[in-house]
Amino acid sequence: MRSVSEAVTSLLENSTRLVDSQEIKLMEATGRTLATDMIASINVPPADNSAMDGYAIRHSDCSGPETAITLSQRITAGSVPAQLQPGTAARIFTGAEVPAGADTVVMQEHCSEEDGAVRMLKLPPEGANIRRCGQDLASGQKVLGAGQRLRAQDLGLLASLGIAKVQVFRRLRVAILSTGDELREPGEAIEPGQIFNSNRYTMKSQLETWGMEVVDLGVARDDPASVRDMMLTAAMQADVVMTSGGVSVGEEDHVKAVVDELGAIDLWRIAVKPGKPFAFGHVQGTPFIGLPGNPVSVFVTLLVIARPYLFACQGITDTVVSATRQVALFSMKETQREDYLRVRSGSGGLDLFTNQSSGVLFSTSWGDGLVRQAAGSDIREGALVDFLPYAVFN
Amino acid sequence: MRSVSEAVTSLLENSTRLVDSQEIKLMEATGRTLATDMIASINVPPADNSAMDGYAIRHSDCSGPETAITLSQRITAGSVPAQLQPGTAARIFTGAEVPAGADTVVMQEHCSEEDGAVRMLKLPPEGANIRRCGQDLASGQKVLGAGQRLRAQDLGLLASLGIAKVQVFRRLRVAILSTGDELREPGEAIEPGQIFNSNRYTMKSQLETWGMEVVDLGVARDDPASVRDMMLTAAMQADVVMTSGGVSVGEEDHVKAVVDELGAIDLWRIAVKPGKPFAFGHVQGTPFIGLPGNPVSVFVTLLVIARPYLFACQGITDTVVSATRQVALFSMKETQREDYLRVRSGSGGLDLFTNQSSGVLFSTSWGDGLVRQAAGSDIREGALVDFLPYAVFN
Repeated sequence: MRSVSEAVTSLLENSTRLVDSQEIKLMEATGRTLATDMIASINVPPADNSAMDGYAIRHSDCSGPETAITLSQRITAGSVPAQLQPGTAARIFTGAEVPAGADTVVMQEHCSEEDGAVRMLKLPPEGANIRRCGQDLASGQKVLGAGQRLRAQDLGLLASLGIAKVQVFRRLRVAILSTGDELREPGEAIEPGQIFNSNRYTMKSQLETWGMEVVDLGVARDDPASVRDMMLTAAMQADVVMTSGGVSVGEEDHVKAVVDELGAIDLWRIAVKPGKPFAFGHVQGTPFIGLPGNPVSVFVTLLVIARPYLFACQGITDTVVSATRQVALFSMKETQREDYLRVRSGSGGLDLFTNQSSGVLFSTSWGDGLVRQAAGSDIREGALVDFLPYAVFN
Repeated sequence: MRSVSEAVTSLLENSTRLVDSQEIKLMEATGRTLATDMIASINVPPADNSAMDGYAIRHSDCSGPETAITLSQRITAGSVPAQLQPGTAARIFTGAEVPAGADTVVMQEHCSEEDGAVRMLKLPPEGANIRRCGQDLASGQKVLGAGQRLRAQDLGLLASLGIAKVQVFRRLRVAILSTGDELREPGEAIEPGQIFNSNRYTMKSQLETWGMEVVDLGVARDDPASVRDMMLTAAMQADVVMTSGGVSVGEEDHVKAVVDELGAIDLWRIAVKPGKPFAFGHVQGTPFIGLPGNPVSVFVTLLVIARPYLFACQGITDTVVSATRQVALFSMKETQREDYLRVRSGSGGLDLFTNQSSGVLFSTSWGDGLVRQAAGSDIREGALVDFLPYAVFN
């Protein structure tokens, strides 16, 4: 039996980026993964500019509030200033370029303007209220690295550097299929013995949330030929093939035999709860991940075990999710496997969903994250535990 | 000067849901907001089913390992079982419906099958390995509420109930515009005195990440007529109008005067850093939010102050983001305003970006979240502080 961390490490060691890059518009790049390092090609700001509405002066020209200094120009944001004439001041606005010859901006609240001249009631130190050329970013500086996923602020940052297009990895294509003759689609009529297929929705939605492209193959019937046909289609159309259910060694589980025939499959015994069985292999060279069949197991293994691997295939460098420490408002006895408990966070701490069975998908919808309970340890009410909000997996 | 919390409360008090609902396919509902409570219309599972591959028996029929019990049927997942004949056992597989007359499933590892009969080497308690009808969800139970945003596991849950379509609120339409003659678009040539427009990218990307629709109006020139034209277009086309920059009282800031003329505007002094000035009002009845002009101020006020309001306009009920407690690896002196420091989390704690100026957007890209430093308090290295990962705002 391998630990979760060993399983993830092993998957990452067997991973390789499976996608090429493409150039897209920056405005459409939210959630995409950078294929190249991004280097600042300009200084930000490109020139010294004013941090305030006020007056630009040469500090040594100002002796005190009794001296009125003549105004020689008015500089608005976006305009090009003339050199400041010695002994004069320039009216200046926030964001406007500081003229050559000026070394200080006095905020307007500390000035008194009258008849084309200004008095400084309060003189700041030399250099005050000027945002220096390159102080935010210096030309040549690396700002984002290949393998980073782009967030709103990253788009803003790249825009501030004048970058309109970026090279990103194309979306990873993941084929998903479920197995089980008992599965019916939502909206269909259900007969005795049948259940609705929820894993397809969980998997597709989560993969799309990660910015991946889903090749949705639906449900394979519980017979080897049907599973085989679908596996071949999946391997041809996608970068990774992912199934839910059908990878235990039961007589009715055909996925194992088919993948074995078409490629290779390892059944992993991972010390995780909920979560087993988990399978890894390939279908004619296309990586294969076999998730368990139980809805909660699918969700947890997708987040905790498959995610780092899929991220690596997508070219994302940072695949680690950091837990925060929160107070448990519940107790749990010692567990043999690493247990991912479904909880809800509140101001007082973390509440546990009462039914932690791997069949109860409602446990994941009820709350907003997982508590990771280490194998061989218990949880006592009031103690700090490892909390993983669902949001940080996205 | 009002606190952040007072500002948010005041905005929420002035908020109302601005969107109607529409019916869409469940598969396309990720990130959308439910317009109705969702009630389970079936039991999950719909009938008692087997949690294991094994043998279904009536417990009282089994005396011990010496007794061979005749196999009377084979029940696979999806098939409809016959009533169990007294004194016999049924071969059964995971997920398959337990036949009437059986009350226990014995896992196959504890059985020995030979010549059409099975011996129980180890007999579990009566009722074992059966997932009861309705144990996950009972028909009539509320599973999700109006105003909840749908995540992957929620789609899975609704699918498990057979729901193929959902009533959601249409996407909130937010018009964005920036002001400033100094602004150029990425990809354009830049002249002295000009800077690239980054706020447009930050705002559009963040709003889209929230599942909202952006009416992108670009940049208004720094003259009242241009600002007025754009404001009228924005108010007509969108549910909310949002600007960056131009709401201070400077001579070149026309937004205030225009919004005042077309509706109403309040300039709020909020004790937040980075963040001021912030404006709230309406343009001919369409709510108006004026964000500051500095890139970091835009980003922070968007997350911390505008987000709860926009979420409420979208019909989302939970607008609160919970901070977690993390160790600061830095010190900060006491602050007058509530300060949102840009940090990066690591295994040892939180590192501070060296330049916390509101002009340095790189500070937000460099890290993965904000530390909230309360007004009037300092931060000492090693102390626990309020950490807000960017991910939890999404």
